[in-house]
Amino acid sequence: MQKSDSPLIGLVMGSSSDWEVMRHAASVIEDFNISYEKRVISAHRMPKEMFEYATLASERGLKGIIAGAGGAAHLPGMLASLTELPVFGVPVPSKYLSGEDSLLSIVQMPKGIPVATFAIGEAGATNAALHLIANLAIYDSQLCNKLRQFRKNQNHLACSMTLPPI
Amino acid sequence: MQKSDSPLIGLVMGSSSDWEVMRHAASVIEDFNISYEKRVISAHRMPKEMFEYATLASERGLKGIIAGAGGAAHLPGMLASLTELPVFGVPVPSKYLSGEDSLLSIVQMPKGIPVATFAIGEAGATNAALHLIANLAIYDSQLCNKLRQFRKNQNHLACSMTLPPI
Amino acid sequence: MQKSDSPLIGLVMGSSSDWEVMRHAASVIEDFNISYEKRVISAHRMPKEMFEYATLASERGLKGIIAGAGGAAHLPGMLASLTELPVFGVPVPSKYLSGEDSLLSIVQMPKGIPVATFAIGEAGATNAALHLIANLAIYDSQLCNKLRQFRKNQNHLACSMTLPPI
Amino acid sequence: MQKSDSPLIGLVMGSSSDWEVMRHAASVIEDFNISYEKRVISAHRMPKEMFEYATLASERGLKGIIAGAGGAAHLPGMLASLTELPVFGVPVPSKYLSGEDSLLSIVQMPKGIPVATFAIGEAGATNAALHLIANLAIYDSQLCNKLRQFRKNQNHLACSMTLPPI
Amino acid sequence: MQKSDSPLIGLVMGSSSDWEVMRHAASVIEDFNISYEKRVISAHRMPKEMFEYATLASERGLKGIIAGAGGAAHLPGMLASLTELPVFGVPVPSKYLSGEDSLLSIVQMPKGIPVATFAIGEAGATNAALHLIANLAIYDSQLCNKLRQFRKNQNHLACSMTLPPI
Amino acid sequence: MQKSDSPLIGLVMGSSSDWEVMRHAASVIEDFNISYEKRVISAHRMPKEMFEYATLASERGLKGIIAGAGGAAHLPGMLASLTELPVFGVPVPSKYLSGEDSLLSIVQMPKGIPVATFAIGEAGATNAALHLIANLAIYDSQLCNKLRQFRKNQNHLACSMTLPPI
Amino acid sequence: MQKSDSPLIGLVMGSSSDWEVMRHAASVIEDFNISYEKRVISAHRMPKEMFEYATLASERGLKGIIAGAGGAAHLPGMLASLTELPVFGVPVPSKYLSGEDSLLSIVQMPKGIPVATFAIGEAGATNAALHLIANLAIYDSQLCNKLRQFRKNQNHLACSMTLPPI
Amino acid sequence: MQKSDSPLIGLVMGSSSDWEVMRHAASVIEDFNISYEKRVISAHRMPKEMFEYATLASERGLKGIIAGAGGAAHLPGMLASLTELPVFGVPVPSKYLSGEDSLLSIVQMPKGIPVATFAIGEAGATNAALHLIANLAIYDSQLCNKLRQFRKNQNHLACSMTLPPI
Repeated sequence: MQKSDSPLIGLVMGSSSDWEVMRHAASVIEDFNISYEKRVISAHRMPKEMFEYATLASERGLKGIIAGAGGAAHLPGMLASLTELPVFGVPVPSKYLSGEDSLLSIVQMPKGIPVATFAIGEAGATNAALHLIANLAIYDSQLCNKLRQFRKNQNHLACSMTLPPI
Repeated sequence: MQKSDSPLIGLVMGSSSDWEVMRHAASVIEDFNISYEKRVISAHRMPKEMFEYATLASERGLKGIIAGAGGAAHLPGMLASLTELPVFGVPVPSKYLSGEDSLLSIVQMPKGIPVATFAIGEAGATNAALHLIANLAIYDSQLCNKLRQFRKNQNHLACSMTLPPI
Repeated sequence: MQKSDSPLIGLVMGSSSDWEVMRHAASVIEDFNISYEKRVISAHRMPKEMFEYATLASERGLKGIIAGAGGAAHLPGMLASLTELPVFGVPVPSKYLSGEDSLLSIVQMPKGIPVATFAIGEAGATNAALHLIANLAIYDSQLCNKLRQFRKNQNHLACSMTLPPI
Repeated sequence: MQKSDSPLIGLVMGSSSDWEVMRHAASVIEDFNISYEKRVISAHRMPKEMFEYATLASERGLKGIIAGAGGAAHLPGMLASLTELPVFGVPVPSKYLSGEDSLLSIVQMPKGIPVATFAIGEAGATNAALHLIANLAIYDSQLCNKLRQFRKNQNHLACSMTLPPI
Repeated sequence: MQKSDSPLIGLVMGSSSDWEVMRHAASVIEDFNISYEKRVISAHRMPKEMFEYATLASERGLKGIIAGAGGAAHLPGMLASLTELPVFGVPVPSKYLSGEDSLLSIVQMPKGIPVATFAIGEAGATNAALHLIANLAIYDSQLCNKLRQFRKNQNHLACSMTLPPI
Repeated sequence: MQKSDSPLIGLVMGSSSDWEVMRHAASVIEDFNISYEKRVISAHRMPKEMFEYATLASERGLKGIIAGAGGAAHLPGMLASLTELPVFGVPVPSKYLSGEDSLLSIVQMPKGIPVATFAIGEAGATNAALHLIANLAIYDSQLCNKLRQFRKNQNHLACSMTLPPI
Repeated sequence: MQKSDSPLIGLVMGSSSDWEVMRHAASVIEDFNISYEKRVISAHRMPKEMFEYATLASERGLKGIIAGAGGAAHLPGMLASLTELPVFGVPVPSKYLSGEDSLLSIVQMPKGIPVATFAIGEAGATNAALHLIANLAIYDSQLCNKLRQFRKNQNHLACSMTLPPI
Repeated sequence: MQKSDSPLIGLVMGSSSDWEVMRHAASVIEDFNISYEKRVISAHRMPKEMFEYATLASERGLKGIIAGAGGAAHLPGMLASLTELPVFGVPVPSKYLSGEDSLLSIVQMPKGIPVATFAIGEAGATNAALHLIANLAIYDSQLCNKLRQFRKNQNHLACSMTLPPI
């Protein structure tokens, strides 16, 4: 899977203030050299744009959508309701409830419309991208090899961690 | 405000299983003799119908929408994002989290798109209807009198409660 | 609905320290050029004043009351018990529980006495004002147009958000 | 402190459905042979009666008030705001949140207006009564002796508990 | 009730680090000019001292004990199990759970051994002292007058709060 | 993607008691006629079997693993740590905490090892399977058509829901 | 370690109603044929007995204490404060908060006085006993072998679990 | 038990960032002059190393393992599943949920595989070490005496705490 002009992954978020968290997803995608687009699309303030984005996503060639949102986080679930593409939701930490509201609003989807949900914050953004890539890698041996290499490096990094004196 | 053919209130819910809770809103509206319609509209399984419903609500003559949903409850917030009409959200109890997820998914809306939220379950459904009616009563003295009478009766009922021996 | 001498909206809060949150409601009301009054009325430290305020609110010409309070937040619910006017509650963040106590104390009202509840903090204050205005706009086409314009502007603002490089 | 015609303790609750819990307080008071009255007084549906009750409580000779309520439980706090008498709050279990809302609504009172709060449910009702009695016993040696005897009996009962085979 | 050499109130806490919160109780007691003692007594690190303190409290002339503790806060409940004197518990905020653990450890006492519980942190410390004083004031008209004056002043202070422009 | 002898999906769970929830995932997979295997593999009681299963999953031809577990639910995360295949976690409701522990144990994975998490209970099991299938459908037009048909049917079913009288 | 007349393990609980949970610990201890005693000792209703029990535990030959309690569960922590023996705490489910209060009251012990805490309910009782036995097994090769056999059997049992058709 | 070359205690954690918390365990172990080793072993990023560590721990002469982890904290539970040695888990505070997720992921282990769990953060790390030492002290009178001395010193320190003026 080589980087091309047409994006394979849509990275969307409800507000530009979510970027601080969601850029961790972008960073992983760029490390794997996959084409993507990043967009602010608010389910609540831009519902028509959100509708159009989700409805066209598949025919525009996207293979998956990563969506981050905070508070009453409806963006991932509404995108999922409008496309058959897999949607990956990232709970962005909220000001007063630390993202517990975001998590429940994203993960507790009703039967029939799935949103794959990840951890609150940066770790979740990173992992949403990694999971999407793992799905793409199933039928792409080159990408699969990259992913294995990534995991090996990660293991080496972890193994080399040392602890200072007390 | 007299009952007419064209409904003034839209009472919607994500699933027919929400009716057990939401019928308490219907009951209040009928007691006040206001015309309304009741509909199952799932934000997730019927997003286009939901879009259309919200977009047309105002020109169809509705004056407010009461929306009940459970779990990752996106219906009230999405309706609110698509109409300037006031939306009243009722958190329906969920199977495993008792509606705590429903409550947070409805009440924690971002700045700019309000959903008036009420208690989890039957009490919330009743009160969503009463609040909507209180808003209609501001410019409708007849309805206002009915509401005052309702409150008086409620007070009398409460005052007459007695307690048995231990 | 033009700004007049006599206030149409009462904006009350339990303590002057709530102003940091509640001024976001005031700001919206001023943007819409609606007359209002703002007052510190503590349900617990000024119960008689609170009683009198709520009891006279309707005949003084108010059309709705926005009430903010934190912790064991009784102000919105007690006002609602004393007037037929619609009451809009804003959970002010508390020092140790981040407003989770405020939210539950406001939203979990018993059947019969509704308080329309909004998000914890600034977003909730903004939205309480917007919801009240949406209710007033039902029978006021000029206000309705303003509200639609507000929503359009909000949409434009959201659509123009851009994201920096990683 | 002998049982007299004029009640020394006011036992109030928001609804007759709270009696199932609050009768445990009544039971303790009767065991100690103290005069009391029991009343349904809803802060929300009977605010004026509540106001009057709290305002007159002291001059009517009450020495303390035990108040039980559930959900957005405002009764104990509002009584406390209207009388200098000590108020003892009992969180009644709520249908969906098991009384967690009741507990926070009662215990998180702001600085200046205290409500002594006890456990959710029957244990809390029992203990509210016992604590009130412990306060009365400070200047009443006969009551103090009764209380010590009660505690001794309780200890004996606990000590005699046995465990069956597995 | 005049300040004397022999203390009427015991103010105890599990650690000297709790003083930042508990001094708010001391401040109220001093305002009312009541004699008291303040002590660090850890239920866990000084159990024998705690036992002795509680067992002797009544015969030493104390009329009530205010106890603050954080985390697995056992001090108030253990004191209450060892004396018939009324015990007033203050949940001290904990480092990671903000005092939610302290609150539950104090308030959820079993049937038979009451601890009057107050809000997490400073407000709770203030109110524990005020509630204890309200109990003492039942049979002390001078103290009762002081308490009424305190409440009046508090009301005046609240009434005089003003709000700045937005 | 036609049903073959060699399974494409591994459906595993920590205990046979999880089957009541996880069979909802199996049901979806069978509806889509995809070959799968179902197994009890306890991360805690069968760690070596779990290790082996995860390590061999990819070379055995699996394309994804759905893992359900309750309480301290380590199965999905440990499988994910041992294979590059995408892992889909289902929080099984726990006896005392209703699956809130299961949810947090599964979703809060650290950066680098993703587990796609779904709702607590049956809805989560159904959606984990649907999400996995959506991923497979990206490069399988026949499966993609089936998925679209499934969604259409679901929409029709939802649209035909009716509400009884009050 | 052979079963002898003098007990090696003390199994205590706050009330005979905790037996339903705590008998799962007894069952494990009997399976391992270790001598133990079981007792109801309420920290709150029998504080002096509790003090004596903890103080004498070591010289009576006990090697560890398993303590179960619910709600404001002070028993494990108070025992730990009075003996150097290792204490193993089991949170017994509470009526309204499902043992979340019990868990926090037991696990959140302050620095210096440890209580080893296990899961809420039956699983926790079983595991407290198993952990205590694992500690005894460190210097007892026969017991160590028994424990290994127990784990093997447990593994076999788990491996043999089968799943029915949907 | 004298400090030797071969470690008796394994102190492991999921990441070097956990050291800030876990060094409090190391500090206690060093105070008691017991040989130990400290290691970063991530259950998720180094599963094979983790497996090997746990499997060999017993024959390498370890007498217990203290494991700290945050978020979806699987390390303590997975170690426990792979060794009969007693495992002591420390919930490390997580960025957004303050360690509530870590606590539940560690303590809610299923029946059969125990992890002794301690408080969130530094207090938990300290106490995990103290509890492990208490277990070792059962058959080591010298260590037992040290532990008693430690407790005495702790008591003296607590007793000498003083409180400043308000």
